[in-house]
Amino acid sequence: MTDVTPSFDAAPVRAYLQGLQTRIAEAIGALDGKPFVADTWTRPLGERLRGGGVTTILEDGALIERGGIGFSDVSGDALPPSASAARPQLAGRGFEAMGVSLVMHPRNPHCPTVHMNVRLLAATKAGEPPVFWFGGGMDLTPSYGYEEDARHFHRVCRDALAPFGIELYPRFKHGCDEYFFLKHRNEMRGVGGIFFDDFDELGFARSFEMMQSVGDAFLEAYVPILEKRRATPYGEHERAFQAYRRGRYVEFNLVFDRGTLFGLQSGGRTESILLSMPPVAHWRYDWQPEPGTPEARLTSEFLKPRDWLE
Amino acid sequence: MTDVTPSFDAAPVRAYLQGLQTRIAEAIGALDGKPFVADTWTRPLGERLRGGGVTTILEDGALIERGGIGFSDVSGDALPPSASAARPQLAGRGFEAMGVSLVMHPRNPHCPTVHMNVRLLAATKAGEPPVFWFGGGMDLTPSYGYEEDARHFHRVCRDALAPFGIELYPRFKHGCDEYFFLKHRNEMRGVGGIFFDDFDELGFARSFEMMQSVGDAFLEAYVPILEKRRATPYGEHERAFQAYRRGRYVEFNLVFDRGTLFGLQSGGRTESILLSMPPVAHWRYDWQPEPGTPEARLTSEFLKPRDWLE
Repeated sequence: MTDVTPSFDAAPVRAYLQGLQTRIAEAIGALDGKPFVADTWTRPLGERLRGGGVTTILEDGALIERGGIGFSDVSGDALPPSASAARPQLAGRGFEAMGVSLVMHPRNPHCPTVHMNVRLLAATKAGEPPVFWFGGGMDLTPSYGYEEDARHFHRVCRDALAPFGIELYPRFKHGCDEYFFLKHRNEMRGVGGIFFDDFDELGFARSFEMMQSVGDAFLEAYVPILEKRRATPYGEHERAFQAYRRGRYVEFNLVFDRGTLFGLQSGGRTESILLSMPPVAHWRYDWQPEPGTPEARLTSEFLKPRDWLE
Repeated sequence: MTDVTPSFDAAPVRAYLQGLQTRIAEAIGALDGKPFVADTWTRPLGERLRGGGVTTILEDGALIERGGIGFSDVSGDALPPSASAARPQLAGRGFEAMGVSLVMHPRNPHCPTVHMNVRLLAATKAGEPPVFWFGGGMDLTPSYGYEEDARHFHRVCRDALAPFGIELYPRFKHGCDEYFFLKHRNEMRGVGGIFFDDFDELGFARSFEMMQSVGDAFLEAYVPILEKRRATPYGEHERAFQAYRRGRYVEFNLVFDRGTLFGLQSGGRTESILLSMPPVAHWRYDWQPEPGTPEARLTSEFLKPRDWLE
């Protein structure tokens, strides 16, 4: 029997993802002083969806107001429409999806929210080799914009991708600007980062290495920003603006985010999917910040595509 | 020239809707003590969408923490997919849509949130008569359930529909239970009410009368509940539960609500569409109320289809 996909192997990807979750939870938990709590879940065999995962959560920490890191490894009988939109020939195939996804909502409004995700998806069919692709990225969403933070975050993203092709950072940066965009608000979710999907062009082994480089870069991209901003004073005014901006985060995730839709459509575990929700969000009719304030500058200077490597 | 739709006439519908908005704003504003503020908006001719509306808002009132009543009258070049899903033969037609939609989020957690909508949609095509239908309904979403409130609300809905056919209330009540359902939570948004769409079976004039009967019944259905509950004492515990439940309201409206999707897809006015959002919403990982508490009884006794006329 000839193995037609000699390099496809989900086991090392699974091991990497589990280790990544643990490393990040330990690092952020140590910074906070309050550890993440792990919640292990499984779905019994025989359902439409099989598998399980570990969701680690930190709520009401000194640094992290609500943050979660989810590892999941699930397989199903039919690829959901949101996953096969770009590859209609795969609709209805079985699938295996594994990944780590995290969102951190810090308490201090000067500390930005961050999202990171790395994942492997394989579409399976009896008698045929699996079709696989990697996806992921990370992006930063400040309530109060700091140019040096955006520059640092983007530089780390660029450096993580550089060994795999100098063209990848601008391509994935553009992908991020396009993806994390609120059409109904005509604004970006944040200052972007990198986003990739349907990625298999380097072959399995090298594509997996690229995904690891992105995952490994997360702490270097985010922790220095947390450390720099965590002691910046703030009051009720800044908290109110943060809650208002978190409403936009909710709008993006529930209306546009394919990962959220994939999870909800495929009968995923709701509490794990919605760990991306902020602890609190406010809505206020037609609210506009005073011109010239830091709140106004967020939209005018930060929430649009910019070259952050200049 | 023969008029093939002798009874279709949008003008009296428009007049009724504008009057309804004014009546409700005056009544609820008087109850609160703080008047609704009207924000009139138009879209210039020549865009893909034409028309305008009046959004009336009350925020930070003594009784209403955030409430809005939107009247809009818009026409467009192509019916959005969310509106023609049930009638694919109309896809791509021009359309005129007019309606009143309201959501009230009271401050007191013992006062339920309410939603009401009445609307007329007409699909237009040069040289052909317009295809019209009415839609709407009202539904109640308590944080703390009171059986007598749910019964009162449903009785008023039944009485409003009775003159138009004794079978309408059970049909529309069932439609409401099915529509306002959060699949990913396996629970209803609230205690239901009535919901109808694609309604033209009584002809234009009589269908319009039915829509008016529903709109006219709103204050009778809701105001007695506000008056009964507005002075019920509450504290931080009840406010926290209310904020948690409002997160579910956000989830329904952004993930499932066709009106919201119709508005956002058709390039509608974002602030008017999202006036349904609560002032504040909380998310908390896998939170469960203590068994036997009023918070636990909400889910076990109220958020499932029940016969409220028993």
